[in-house]
Amino acid sequence: MLNKPRIIAVIGGGQCSQQETELAEAVGREIARRGAVLVCGGLSGVMEAACRGASNEGGLTIGILPGENRDAANPYVRIPIVTGIGYARNVIVAKSAQAVIAIDGSYGTLTEIGYALQSGIPVIGLNTWSLARDGQPNSSIIPAENATDAVSKAISSITSQYPD
Amino acid sequence: MLNKPRIIAVIGGGQCSQQETELAEAVGREIARRGAVLVCGGLSGVMEAACRGASNEGGLTIGILPGENRDAANPYVRIPIVTGIGYARNVIVAKSAQAVIAIDGSYGTLTEIGYALQSGIPVIGLNTWSLARDGQPNSSIIPAENATDAVSKAISSITSQYPD
Amino acid sequence: MLNKPRIIAVIGGGQCSQQETELAEAVGREIARRGAVLVCGGLSGVMEAACRGASNEGGLTIGILPGENRDAANPYVRIPIVTGIGYARNVIVAKSAQAVIAIDGSYGTLTEIGYALQSGIPVIGLNTWSLARDGQPNSSIIPAENATDAVSKAISSITSQYPD
Amino acid sequence: MLNKPRIIAVIGGGQCSQQETELAEAVGREIARRGAVLVCGGLSGVMEAACRGASNEGGLTIGILPGENRDAANPYVRIPIVTGIGYARNVIVAKSAQAVIAIDGSYGTLTEIGYALQSGIPVIGLNTWSLARDGQPNSSIIPAENATDAVSKAISSITSQYPD
Repeated sequence: MLNKPRIIAVIGGGQCSQQETELAEAVGREIARRGAVLVCGGLSGVMEAACRGASNEGGLTIGILPGENRDAANPYVRIPIVTGIGYARNVIVAKSAQAVIAIDGSYGTLTEIGYALQSGIPVIGLNTWSLARDGQPNSSIIPAENATDAVSKAISSITSQYPD
Repeated sequence: MLNKPRIIAVIGGGQCSQQETELAEAVGREIARRGAVLVCGGLSGVMEAACRGASNEGGLTIGILPGENRDAANPYVRIPIVTGIGYARNVIVAKSAQAVIAIDGSYGTLTEIGYALQSGIPVIGLNTWSLARDGQPNSSIIPAENATDAVSKAISSITSQYPD
Repeated sequence: MLNKPRIIAVIGGGQCSQQETELAEAVGREIARRGAVLVCGGLSGVMEAACRGASNEGGLTIGILPGENRDAANPYVRIPIVTGIGYARNVIVAKSAQAVIAIDGSYGTLTEIGYALQSGIPVIGLNTWSLARDGQPNSSIIPAENATDAVSKAISSITSQYPD
Repeated sequence: MLNKPRIIAVIGGGQCSQQETELAEAVGREIARRGAVLVCGGLSGVMEAACRGASNEGGLTIGILPGENRDAANPYVRIPIVTGIGYARNVIVAKSAQAVIAIDGSYGTLTEIGYALQSGIPVIGLNTWSLARDGQPNSSIIPAENATDAVSKAISSITSQYPD
């Protein structure tokens, strides 16, 4: 039986600022350095920056694409998964990960956060959504200081869930 | 060509308090009285209460079921849609509606809110999630005072999007 | 509790000949006359002809749309279900029905036949696919002579599965 | 930009005979020897045998799981993709591949064949379904003699579609 690699999702907007691009790329780099596999939605913005970072460190990158065309993947996706199920693919991005790092993002990112939390998958946040329900703050999203802190928190949460 | 009925989704938890049950039932009743079709996730809690309310007023109720078994629908669902796609069916509940009314709810409800807002479908909230992003409150969820107010706001938003 | 209506799917190509159009329209008419609800993929060709037939007889028609736009439904769909999941919606067309009538059709129709048979849902065929496995004919698709025969066989198979 | 690996799906039953197990394992071995990535449904039977073959040759194996539990993957899946969308995941198995090899299989396999052919993805068959439509044989499934022949035909078809 194989010793399976850890899998971390990076989620966030298909368009993002220069600052978020650098943050996502640093997150991707750190994921690869820690030996984990990066899963994402496979498109542009945060997804592309994270894949570029991971790819430059020799990491494995998987892009869960919404459409039917494998060529829609950003150039740093090594394994494109072609779903054809549109934004319902957000479920798969979230649930395929053992921990999720959210960087900024819009409503699609919000659905991925919801799906991860529903499955008990830890979500680490960098400048992203915060939640309250019925007037009470919900602290399920774990805040991180920077890229290294985010990946460390992701790895720690995986290790505590899936001890060797 | 048919004059198509308005379609309103009611979303919320599969388990809920007595107060939320009464609220959901009142929302369902009002949807039926206004001649709209109720779509929901087809299961228990808020979904069942809303269907009961609509059904008692002679309204049409559609349940978008996550599993493969039509008998999992609550007894007030008239048309069970059997998806077998699990919680990815949340996309369909949100996107099939012209307006969404959220009553309380947990992370699944949060994904439905995200999908509706992503598609520009108005979301009216009753004691449900509130959102902030990057420290700024997000006011996309339209608050309502009570069941009648929620349905009025849903109908108004549909009328303004789809004028006769 | 409601006495739920029977639900019959009509599947087939998005483009079809005049002969198949007439056949599909006759199937739709007969489904409505027998008091059943018609579910289909909501688009053109066989789907539109069947919806037109059912609609002209006052039947309820449900279109399970692949895309994100409710206006893509043919004009005879009364309740558009907006999935956004592309051709994965074929699962839902098949599994939401208690019996399926296949008229001609291409590879998408083949997937719907496969999904129905996988779930033990009877498939009645009019000029459609026939199957063999490992060299042996597979007789799971029940052949019908004409529209009336197809709907009679669909209703009979539902009655035997779900006796009153 | 990365030179992306070729991706070949192996589809077939979750239960299979000793003969099919050996055939699937040989197909998996050959896929890995040719440097391609193996994608499959991630469960038992043909899927597990193919993954075991590929894994023993050091190949990368990806399992597109129907459920919500990553531990449902067979032990030779290196990257489990957790979809939670049930048998709608068959779309993803088919569409993520550049060529599909079908070994025996039942109705689920039939849906994967249909989805692949719908997208113009070549399907190579080993003791699997054969198709006819409206009484005419459909020769879309390319027959193979044995495991090596099947993988050669898969690689050839990919090379002709995606020349370097």
